[in-house]
Amino acid sequence: MRIQPKDKRMLLKAALGQIPCDLLIKNANLVNVITGEIYPANVFIYDGIIAHVEYKDLQSDLDKAKEVIDADNKYLIPGFIDAHEHIESSMMTPRNFAKAVIPHGTTTVITDPHEIANVWGMEGVRYMHDSGNGLPMRQLIDIPSCVPAVPGLENAGADFLADQIEELCGLERVIGLAEVMDFLAVINGEDRMMDILKTAEDRGLYIQGHAPFVSGRMLSAYICGGPNTCHETRMGDEGLEKLRSGMFVDARDSSIAKNVAAIWEGVKDIKFFDHLCFCTDDREADDILHAGHVNDVVRNAISCGMDPVAAIKSATYNSAREVKIENLGAVAPGFAADMLLVDDIRNPEPSHVIFGGKLVAQDGKLLVDIEDQEFEIERRNSMHVKSLSSEDFLLKADIEEGSVRVNLMKYNDLLLSSTVVSTEELPVKNGCVQLNDDDLKYVAVVNRHEGHDTIGLGVVRGFGTTTGALASTVSHDSHNLTIVYDNPENALIAANELIACGGGMCAVKDGKVLHTLELPCAGLISLKPAEQLAVDSAQMKDANRALGLVNIENPLLRIVTLALPVIPEAKMSDLGLVDVLNKKIIPLFAK
Amino acid sequence: MRIQPKDKRMLLKAALGQIPCDLLIKNANLVNVITGEIYPANVFIYDGIIAHVEYKDLQSDLDKAKEVIDADNKYLIPGFIDAHEHIESSMMTPRNFAKAVIPHGTTTVITDPHEIANVWGMEGVRYMHDSGNGLPMRQLIDIPSCVPAVPGLENAGADFLADQIEELCGLERVIGLAEVMDFLAVINGEDRMMDILKTAEDRGLYIQGHAPFVSGRMLSAYICGGPNTCHETRMGDEGLEKLRSGMFVDARDSSIAKNVAAIWEGVKDIKFFDHLCFCTDDREADDILHAGHVNDVVRNAISCGMDPVAAIKSATYNSAREVKIENLGAVAPGFAADMLLVDDIRNPEPSHVIFGGKLVAQDGKLLVDIEDQEFEIERRNSMHVKSLSSEDFLLKADIEEGSVRVNLMKYNDLLLSSTVVSTEELPVKNGCVQLNDDDLKYVAVVNRHEGHDTIGLGVVRGFGTTTGALASTVSHDSHNLTIVYDNPENALIAANELIACGGGMCAVKDGKVLHTLELPCAGLISLKPAEQLAVDSAQMKDANRALGLVNIENPLLRIVTLALPVIPEAKMSDLGLVDVLNKKIIPLFAK
Repeated sequence: MRIQPKDKRMLLKAALGQIPCDLLIKNANLVNVITGEIYPANVFIYDGIIAHVEYKDLQSDLDKAKEVIDADNKYLIPGFIDAHEHIESSMMTPRNFAKAVIPHGTTTVITDPHEIANVWGMEGVRYMHDSGNGLPMRQLIDIPSCVPAVPGLENAGADFLADQIEELCGLERVIGLAEVMDFLAVINGEDRMMDILKTAEDRGLYIQGHAPFVSGRMLSAYICGGPNTCHETRMGDEGLEKLRSGMFVDARDSSIAKNVAAIWEGVKDIKFFDHLCFCTDDREADDILHAGHVNDVVRNAISCGMDPVAAIKSATYNSAREVKIENLGAVAPGFAADMLLVDDIRNPEPSHVIFGGKLVAQDGKLLVDIEDQEFEIERRNSMHVKSLSSEDFLLKADIEEGSVRVNLMKYNDLLLSSTVVSTEELPVKNGCVQLNDDDLKYVAVVNRHEGHDTIGLGVVRGFGTTTGALASTVSHDSHNLTIVYDNPENALIAANELIACGGGMCAVKDGKVLHTLELPCAGLISLKPAEQLAVDSAQMKDANRALGLVNIENPLLRIVTLALPVIPEAKMSDLGLVDVLNKKIIPLFAK
Repeated sequence: MRIQPKDKRMLLKAALGQIPCDLLIKNANLVNVITGEIYPANVFIYDGIIAHVEYKDLQSDLDKAKEVIDADNKYLIPGFIDAHEHIESSMMTPRNFAKAVIPHGTTTVITDPHEIANVWGMEGVRYMHDSGNGLPMRQLIDIPSCVPAVPGLENAGADFLADQIEELCGLERVIGLAEVMDFLAVINGEDRMMDILKTAEDRGLYIQGHAPFVSGRMLSAYICGGPNTCHETRMGDEGLEKLRSGMFVDARDSSIAKNVAAIWEGVKDIKFFDHLCFCTDDREADDILHAGHVNDVVRNAISCGMDPVAAIKSATYNSAREVKIENLGAVAPGFAADMLLVDDIRNPEPSHVIFGGKLVAQDGKLLVDIEDQEFEIERRNSMHVKSLSSEDFLLKADIEEGSVRVNLMKYNDLLLSSTVVSTEELPVKNGCVQLNDDDLKYVAVVNRHEGHDTIGLGVVRGFGTTTGALASTVSHDSHNLTIVYDNPENALIAANELIACGGGMCAVKDGKVLHTLELPCAGLISLKPAEQLAVDSAQMKDANRALGLVNIENPLLRIVTLALPVIPEAKMSDLGLVDVLNKKIIPLFAK
């Protein structure tokens, strides 16, 4: 795929110097990611495309542009490309997201609207696409491949088959098939997945992978199936194996998963880094505001010991190759004019952000107006939940008094999302299972999608809260209303609070709402800009801590993977307790 | 574009070890061109695709393949890719060409059937495509973009517009638009060229460039027009400028133009060589037999100082990226199983050539049978020339006796194909222009294509022959019958000889044919295999030397660019003397 100018003939004239360019960046120290060199250059831009780069005669044609930026010997580098992320994870709308990341130098994101697809289906994907129109950055779309994540183990708001993928290919900024998480379906050649992959291949989309801990012959089979990228790499040897296997490794520093340092340690001794890219996957508003975005990942890689030019290449040119956009990710004639000026090549915080040949941010401030647009879907209630009572949250046994053996999900660690199935003897009073220590909590997953009214109930050990009810409609990947609670009354208050506001997160203690983070758009996204959302989010974190989630870096993220049935071994869904590895529902009560 | 297995599900099973692979290459020293590493590995192949590469446990699964090659610690590298060439220039049919290059390790060529397109049009392109079907190598086709080379200055056998390009896109192995030689048409945004480029872009073809000595803003404009590769780079600084400008530089060592050493000298200090590739462009049968093919170019680059692994990467992975084939050019799961075993990484002459997972050549010998196929076009007479007489070769003046001032083409040097327009006073006898020294010769370009009967006559200085007539139907790019001669009688003998045999090359001295190299297919291609053709060709060279072409490495190539109206400044065509830079016909007689 090539980014085309509006009128190629006019671009040719501009390149030849026959008509004035729109912009000249003079006195730059050009970082050429194709050759790895740094040299003084003047860059001429017309119609969003780099028309000419002059490095031989730096005094010529300085008058042949309508506007001039004097780079004052700063480094001129390509705009950063985020190789994989979910805008929804920032909890911002695509337009508010743009306002937050552009000043940090991210000019392109490859975004997977997977979260909203699980709520609003194709309409959700179209919203993420359309609301990114006309922005001073490229929000390129990968079509979600696994909606729901694991068919049959949960009910999501949509079900994507090859037909849906085919239809979404018609969107203008679609470039790939998003993270193919169901790697077992690929490896086993399951019909549904083979059809989806074939559709993507026939349309020329690149196929984004997702292969955590997949290795050896399993990894080879996964790659033979089509996906050839992975952002789910955590260990150095895993990174090395994937690079050796020809995958693109999108080394990730998200708000929660920091993988770049470990990956670098494993791959630093190889000679070519053509297939090493960077991504943020999931970054929250406050993290973007304070730490940065792709620039922060690049800085981390450099501080680990990576050569700065190679690191910049990974975050620009390599990612563009990965997603098959030919003229993106370098400062050269014919390339899209997305560029940054930075003072320090080891800490690439841009003083100037140029997108499509226009100066769009300077010294951390957005210079262009991103018009607020109204989208009906942003305020449409996605909480399709029947009227609830505290009765719905009672865990009923088939005896009145005594004890039962309960199959529950048990967290291995407060900092990990992995779990095991554990069986415990729990007391029963008045026909209901009771919790006999503070480390145990009830858990409910209430389907919130139209056409479903299932509620999965169970017990969790080691979640981390000591009291109250914590509820969230951000609950990967089906995003059902998930509640961890000490008693049904608190659960009901939290549930009703979120049903009333259209979704979000809520903490309740002793019958009182401590805080509600409202996410009215699909129950996933706030309508607030980053600065306000960060405040709201900080209050929500405090409320979570008040429930006991104290020794965890980001307490918001504890609940959001509780119902994700691709993380071994035990997860909850609206259908009950899920045995992840065996892809089946486990009965609540053991024999 | 991806090379697909016949049945992906079976490939997945093979990758997983659930069914036996077709071939295992064990005990290899794998040269991983993606990471730049070399390490011991076993490689499992199924259905033409690499199913799995094992490097952790080299003792496992050794029984899981139907056939085994013990690499005995040799280097295992990807099969070589020739980034640009014309099979016609070998003067061999596609099938005979395959027999010659496969033992040298070339498993893929990107071939531009430009020569035959100028003779037989679309049918010629289809022949080159179809006769490459089923070969144990990949002959991938770029569609000729400039037929004729410069419209209006010559009559070729065809005229390709966007419609023809569009139609040829339907051929299975088409991957690109071939060398866009008319760089001025690109830079100036001429309609015909813009339409051709748009057709190629819309069909997702890569666009191969051709930009000799193009630099600065002209080069920028050319790249903005679409082409982003160049094999016409001769100087180091030219190579550096093109790499910096984001082009792929296909460094060439053809039979006549040896550019690799000079390019390397200019680019050796850069850090990344992602865009440096190799090509042979035009290599003759005897050169292929004795020096080699792409392997010879790689060896040259290494002997110039290039790192062997980087050089192998340039000749494999980089070229595959250039032409946008995703799973070609590396030894990794999911990649096409085209590989070589070599003893010496600095001199990559393969002991084993594996194509599509099959051992096809060993120790310089082809192991598989390339069946001879009959194509009617191979023997169809392409010499559409009216009955000639010696009268046709008389250069008539408009006076009977005296002298005239003649505009002639004058070679600058015996070793260069560049020329200037020169004006000389020549005697006239019996109404005809006479030559008054041995360095002057007559030249005739006789159109040989259906529907044309034009003959361009003129005078050439410095061509190099001292006596006789030298004739050729290999005469870029229109391939009209071109004759350099001392007197009309010799010219007529040479012309009639080639008309009778369907084209080729012929040397005549004192009324006697010294040798005729018969090229019955399109007047360009012999039907002989390399070994026989090399003998025939050597005899033709001796005959050329007998005419005076002694101080020139390859005397066959002297005449073939005499009529090529893209090489400055003066060339002959069937329409007369061409002023290349001003794109016009110059009158024979000066005022």
